[in-house]
Amino acid sequence: MGGEVKSNKKVVLKNYVTGFPRETDMEVVTDGEGFKFPEGGGGGVVLKNLYLSCDPYMRSRMSKHDEPSYVPDFVPGSVITGFGVGKVLHSDHPNFKVGDFVWGMTGWEEYSLITSPESLFKIKYTDIPLSYYTGLLGMPGFTAYVGFYEISSPKKGEYVFISAASGAVGQLVGQFAKLMGCYVVGSAGSDEKVDLLKNKFGFDEAFNYKKEEELGLTLKRYFPEGIDIYFENVGGAMLDAVLLNMRLHGRIAVCGMISQYNLEKPEGVHNLMYVVAKRIRMQGFIVFDHYHLYSQFLETTVSYIKEGKITYVEDVAEGLENAPSALIGLFSGRNKGKQLVVVARE
Amino acid sequence: MGGEVKSNKKVVLKNYVTGFPRETDMEVVTDGEGFKFPEGGGGGVVLKNLYLSCDPYMRSRMSKHDEPSYVPDFVPGSVITGFGVGKVLHSDHPNFKVGDFVWGMTGWEEYSLITSPESLFKIKYTDIPLSYYTGLLGMPGFTAYVGFYEISSPKKGEYVFISAASGAVGQLVGQFAKLMGCYVVGSAGSDEKVDLLKNKFGFDEAFNYKKEEELGLTLKRYFPEGIDIYFENVGGAMLDAVLLNMRLHGRIAVCGMISQYNLEKPEGVHNLMYVVAKRIRMQGFIVFDHYHLYSQFLETTVSYIKEGKITYVEDVAEGLENAPSALIGLFSGRNKGKQLVVVARE
Repeated sequence: MGGEVKSNKKVVLKNYVTGFPRETDMEVVTDGEGFKFPEGGGGGVVLKNLYLSCDPYMRSRMSKHDEPSYVPDFVPGSVITGFGVGKVLHSDHPNFKVGDFVWGMTGWEEYSLITSPESLFKIKYTDIPLSYYTGLLGMPGFTAYVGFYEISSPKKGEYVFISAASGAVGQLVGQFAKLMGCYVVGSAGSDEKVDLLKNKFGFDEAFNYKKEEELGLTLKRYFPEGIDIYFENVGGAMLDAVLLNMRLHGRIAVCGMISQYNLEKPEGVHNLMYVVAKRIRMQGFIVFDHYHLYSQFLETTVSYIKEGKITYVEDVAEGLENAPSALIGLFSGRNKGKQLVVVARE
Repeated sequence: MGGEVKSNKKVVLKNYVTGFPRETDMEVVTDGEGFKFPEGGGGGVVLKNLYLSCDPYMRSRMSKHDEPSYVPDFVPGSVITGFGVGKVLHSDHPNFKVGDFVWGMTGWEEYSLITSPESLFKIKYTDIPLSYYTGLLGMPGFTAYVGFYEISSPKKGEYVFISAASGAVGQLVGQFAKLMGCYVVGSAGSDEKVDLLKNKFGFDEAFNYKKEEELGLTLKRYFPEGIDIYFENVGGAMLDAVLLNMRLHGRIAVCGMISQYNLEKPEGVHNLMYVVAKRIRMQGFIVFDHYHLYSQFLETTVSYIKEGKITYVEDVAEGLENAPSALIGLFSGRNKGKQLVVVARE
């Protein structure tokens, strides 16, 4: 296979984005030179990409930053990268062999050469749909696990609120919280998602934030005793409303702030004084810092899946051609459940 | 002494305050009925008040709140209460005897009946100026201790920034941080205070925030490597500038936000996204939750004082007549060091 050349379709960033990203900020092209398999000895692996993950944090990578962030900016003219699931077609690395399935950072293209395959996770359970490793069993699911169990210090019976609750992370946080015996309410941006939360994921309550006049009063209605744990995915006005409604010694696990990513200047948050009066702990986290917990997460979650204690909803876009629109749909909330792109099914 | 009546001068709140408080929101009156010593058996103690503490948190008590806060609102027409040092003149409680010195919640008046004396701390070291128990060895000093050692998870060599640094709490946080081997910078609102920070309290650097154009750049100048620990006393624009300049895994101990207390609507804080990217922990705290650590704090701090390792600056107002102006001066930053009021010296 060394030296072989294959045609390689890919999604490239055309230009850095300001404000709301558009499909036309990306381009689907077929590399003129094609993908050339390495001659061997380089220590890398070649992946055939199967499933690609659309994640909100990718928005930040589409803009140019003067100072480096925790993930590097994309480069205009180059292929977009992100989490995905792939099959090993060629390996110069002792940990991987042809035919292995892996998940980790890869390119938005048909074939990728991964030069540092140590960063890939070999997929242990292949009897579970492989696409789940872009979500439930991949980075977003692991984020839910770390953010809930490690960052939120949850206790049975506590009151838990989750924003963007039907998304890849939120749906799982809510189910973990229910399994622990918490009271769980989620917010989402459509009645259909609210229905999912209540009738599919087993949340105690859920509401469509777009239909609420005054989020502070809405939360007061759902949490007359206040909120012990807020799993923060959106920021802005929702965070202000939550701060008003937190209980003493409440915890806010700050996972993301999707409502702010496309604004030129983020909204102001006005109610931070409650952090003192209510002794609130706000803790930002990124799952990369917690990779040592991955196998613990995996075993726990796979058991829950096999026992039917956890359910999962995916929103599947077919083909690389539809990848730009799938990614952008995250920011208007078009996806229902985990958004992913199928490049190939095997 | 039971049944004896003494004239009792006191400071009462005239009306609830909105916006910036004025001296005329309070009134110094001599109670027409005087102070009547209890006949005995009630379990209380009578204090002769010596020193009263002016603290920023008292601003909140001057306004009416629909929902109860962690400290109750003052009542118009009634005496203001706060931390102070007093001498026991009469005791119906087995833990206290006549002549004991105590600190704790008392009235802004010459004589107070304390009906729940369990809340008072008996003063163990009377060879240290008794006024210190309104500051360095009282609530503010203990707040500095808890906020630094318990909340900030400090390590030797870390970069520490303190706002309102010459105040009762800040001056001590900075000295604790220097004793631990941290690099310490403070901000204050006058050149005279900056001089105190650098030349009296031993901060590595200090600046007058009123002379800075762009606080984000100022902090970048003082912390080219970023801030590990921010001891937050002011809120608003300073917090935004700090968020920009925090290091990965930084901690923000949120003690207060004095810049916001007199605003109708608090300023918006825009840079909270850095809480995620930098994995910042923001932790609000109130010293009341940590009273079990008081004797540990006291022994540590008294040793430091006796070894000359800690210095302390008080701003002393003479007489109850000057108490309203002393309290209000906190909010314009008129005080240099810990603001207190002398009611009587013995």
